[in-house]
Amino acid sequence: MSAPDPAVIDLLGLVAYGELLAFDRLAADARLAPDLRRRAALGEMAAAEIAHYRWIADRITALGAAPDEAMAPYVEALEAYHDSTEPKDWLAAVTKAYVGDAITDDFLRQIADGLAEPDRQLILDVLHDSRYAEFAAAEIRAAIAADPRVADRLSMWARRLVGEALSQAGRVAAADRGALTALIARRVDVPALFQRLTDAHTARMTAAGLNN
Amino acid sequence: MSAPDPAVIDLLGLVAYGELLAFDRLAADARLAPDLRRRAALGEMAAAEIAHYRWIADRITALGAAPDEAMAPYVEALEAYHDSTEPKDWLAAVTKAYVGDAITDDFLRQIADGLAEPDRQLILDVLHDSRYAEFAAAEIRAAIAADPRVADRLSMWARRLVGEALSQAGRVAAADRGALTALIARRVDVPALFQRLTDAHTARMTAAGLNN
Repeated sequence: MSAPDPAVIDLLGLVAYGELLAFDRLAADARLAPDLRRRAALGEMAAAEIAHYRWIADRITALGAAPDEAMAPYVEALEAYHDSTEPKDWLAAVTKAYVGDAITDDFLRQIADGLAEPDRQLILDVLHDSRYAEFAAAEIRAAIAADPRVADRLSMWARRLVGEALSQAGRVAAADRGALTALIARRVDVPALFQRLTDAHTARMTAAGLNN
Repeated sequence: MSAPDPAVIDLLGLVAYGELLAFDRLAADARLAPDLRRRAALGEMAAAEIAHYRWIADRITALGAAPDEAMAPYVEALEAYHDSTEPKDWLAAVTKAYVGDAITDDFLRQIADGLAEPDRQLILDVLHDSRYAEFAAAEIRAAIAADPRVADRLSMWARRLVGEALSQAGRVAAADRGALTALIARRVDVPALFQRLTDAHTARMTAAGLNN
């Protein structure tokens, strides 16, 4: 076996810690649910994250690296994102999951294209199940139908989430040991990536009844 | 289809809420982990609980009842247990999972025997995977090996957990609408059940290096 690309270990470390933290925060946000059915729904979204964490961590181990060490450079930047976007109520939590999952998936889909197998398929396998986005969009639409003023509040919140995600991306790049940033710059047209992420985000906002 | 036994709906409601709350508390306790590997391990135990919740909730729905309503009578009693046994550190969290999972499983195994299919098999399917108990027991043994005084502290904590679980069982019986308590009394020799639970608990304490 040839020595694994350090950039791939870094990427897997970033994704693994993203999953672990998403589990943690979604599980906590589930307590904001107005009833047990919705609480369980967010809990199940959290459970999917930890299952994906396991796949990624096992792959890091198989590549001869330690998951804890691969994740370490990204702990601070990812925690800063979640600390600065702690939802105060159920709709904010659902909107955060809706916006955050989708941007993460858009980013990972772009990155996966540049990877060799089995890592390309692994990254595609940890994309979020579309039924979670459908659940979240339905919650947001129902809340807007009940009270149209909700749309403004959640639209503003979604813009803030995107802003925080972008500055988080900057922090991740700063925290990176260089290999991952180089891999992304080499394989992805970064301005075009941002344009695609933005366009897809706008379309999703509209689908949930929010304005951009 | 004959009308479902209301006691079975009650039992499934009790188990479902137990799973949902176990998910919530294990996910929160995972933050006490000393490293990311252990944090993920507790997160995976939490994820198993929410998966089991889904199976039980789907069965309640299939029986023509609403999961939220079936769970409602047990919310207060189960939350009281967790509120009174909130772990203060990682070893307390692991010991709580070890003791609580095992007593729950012992109880469910006894109850399952009296049920018709498919509910008997469903209850057996939500018993905890033994690798979680092995993980927890290994954590406890390693901590005792590093500092023998830990054994006294955790033994005392385990006794308190059992005490709280027993008084929780009393609260559950008081909260019950009658059918579940009658089902248990009809199908289970309660004093013998307590004796078996106690014996199994003693054996588990010894296996983890704790005294009873």
